[in-house]
Amino acid sequence: MKPLPPDITCASRPLTFTVTATNEHGEQLDTEIAGEGPLTLYLDKREIVTLMTLGAAPEALAIGYLRNQRLIPSVENIACVQVDWETEAVAVTTREGVKIPAKRLKKRTVTTGCGQGTVFGDLMEEIDKIQLPQDVTLDEETLHSLLENVRHHDSLYKKAGALHGCALARNDKILYYIEDVGRHNAVDAIAGQMWLDGVAGGDKIFYTTGRLTSEMVIKAAQMGIPFLISRSGLTRMGWEIANRVGITMLGRAQGRHFLLFTGAQRFRFAGKAT
Amino acid sequence: MKPLPPDITCASRPLTFTVTATNEHGEQLDTEIAGEGPLTLYLDKREIVTLMTLGAAPEALAIGYLRNQRLIPSVENIACVQVDWETEAVAVTTREGVKIPAKRLKKRTVTTGCGQGTVFGDLMEEIDKIQLPQDVTLDEETLHSLLENVRHHDSLYKKAGALHGCALARNDKILYYIEDVGRHNAVDAIAGQMWLDGVAGGDKIFYTTGRLTSEMVIKAAQMGIPFLISRSGLTRMGWEIANRVGITMLGRAQGRHFLLFTGAQRFRFAGKAT
Repeated sequence: MKPLPPDITCASRPLTFTVTATNEHGEQLDTEIAGEGPLTLYLDKREIVTLMTLGAAPEALAIGYLRNQRLIPSVENIACVQVDWETEAVAVTTREGVKIPAKRLKKRTVTTGCGQGTVFGDLMEEIDKIQLPQDVTLDEETLHSLLENVRHHDSLYKKAGALHGCALARNDKILYYIEDVGRHNAVDAIAGQMWLDGVAGGDKIFYTTGRLTSEMVIKAAQMGIPFLISRSGLTRMGWEIANRVGITMLGRAQGRHFLLFTGAQRFRFAGKAT
Repeated sequence: MKPLPPDITCASRPLTFTVTATNEHGEQLDTEIAGEGPLTLYLDKREIVTLMTLGAAPEALAIGYLRNQRLIPSVENIACVQVDWETEAVAVTTREGVKIPAKRLKKRTVTTGCGQGTVFGDLMEEIDKIQLPQDVTLDEETLHSLLENVRHHDSLYKKAGALHGCALARNDKILYYIEDVGRHNAVDAIAGQMWLDGVAGGDKIFYTTGRLTSEMVIKAAQMGIPFLISRSGLTRMGWEIANRVGITMLGRAQGRHFLLFTGAQRFRFAGKAT
């Protein structure tokens, strides 16, 4: 028997606020700024983490965080996700409880900090198990069309700045577009939404406005997504992991420009017959 | 008797690497990318955290991390800082040991994640204790001159992208400019260098290419710096904390443009007699 879908709140918050600023001409201007607030995640009443978030997709964020940290093995384990902004908390309740190995919690302790929140040691060990599909391709015209769609997508960033956006796409069609104050939150929220909707990664494209650091590449690969595209640049570890896991990674993708860094076998240039 | 300065390594690493990428014309290009690697911090042989870093200023980063997380009360406690890239480790040894309350370690556990690595609960409690100097001013021409100096500063970002830069300045003079893959690392490294050099914050300006989120504002205020300037935008909590702590905060500062958000009493517009 298929389990019921989780019972979840829909507690997206007002996302921008207006403050008054003074510009270089001494003029007072109303300026929109992005929301940001703490959201403490409880898993079966156990406090796990406090996330600083825009609050656009708090339920998906909570689920995606637990997914990407591998604290819950599948979405079927989740009975209920309740966001309460009064107490700045999200409570995730599982159907039969989950066991978190003590080692995991210890690991998490020591990787706090500018590692940007990932259980890095554990993740590296899992990379070699990832098999990304080889029978999918992305052609240059589809890429351009997707980048155009991203550019025209209504985003809070255009209004308020100080946000990172991530999109999940199939060909040039944007399926999800999620923004948050941290790029890792945006990635996690997409991972959570994919679980909620039963969406697989194998024929999808992951787009991010953020940089392609080690963690961004690891998370895309863990979601089983063979294409990773960023408007920004990349770091050495991002590149090394992309090579190792065999993901097709494009950076500096904006307008008609891009740089194809890894996984060239899945990319079709417009000029070439294939 | 004044204690000896800490005995530290100078283990700055090669910072960029060249990889080959293919552009939209199908041309193969050598592209410089930023380094990124793990650095595990040990405090008196106790593993504290693994930081993902460019590696430009690993000793200052380690000290600044311990300072900003308030794990060490003053630089005089530090006997020695040893970076070893072979083992990807930095060992900080104190003179007489430090006591880390169990509560602090627990707190750190639960704030892991996209809170970008700060002991947020604890930090908020300390904000109200911060007293920033009121008798310092920044005039508009000095601001423009500083932004020009930042623009002309030799930066890896110009070559490799995917980096955040932070500067500490006095008037328009840049004292430190540190880049890292994470904006929090860059801030922490500046905090560490200030401790090493005995530099106080009260007459300084903190510049960052990154966004003015809650944590950025808290860290600048904790360093006692009354001026915080960013090329980017801000979030609501960044704004609220800036108001609460009374810091003079400017965003979108680029060229001759800026937006003055908080602490206007310390800013002098060029057109106005004061």
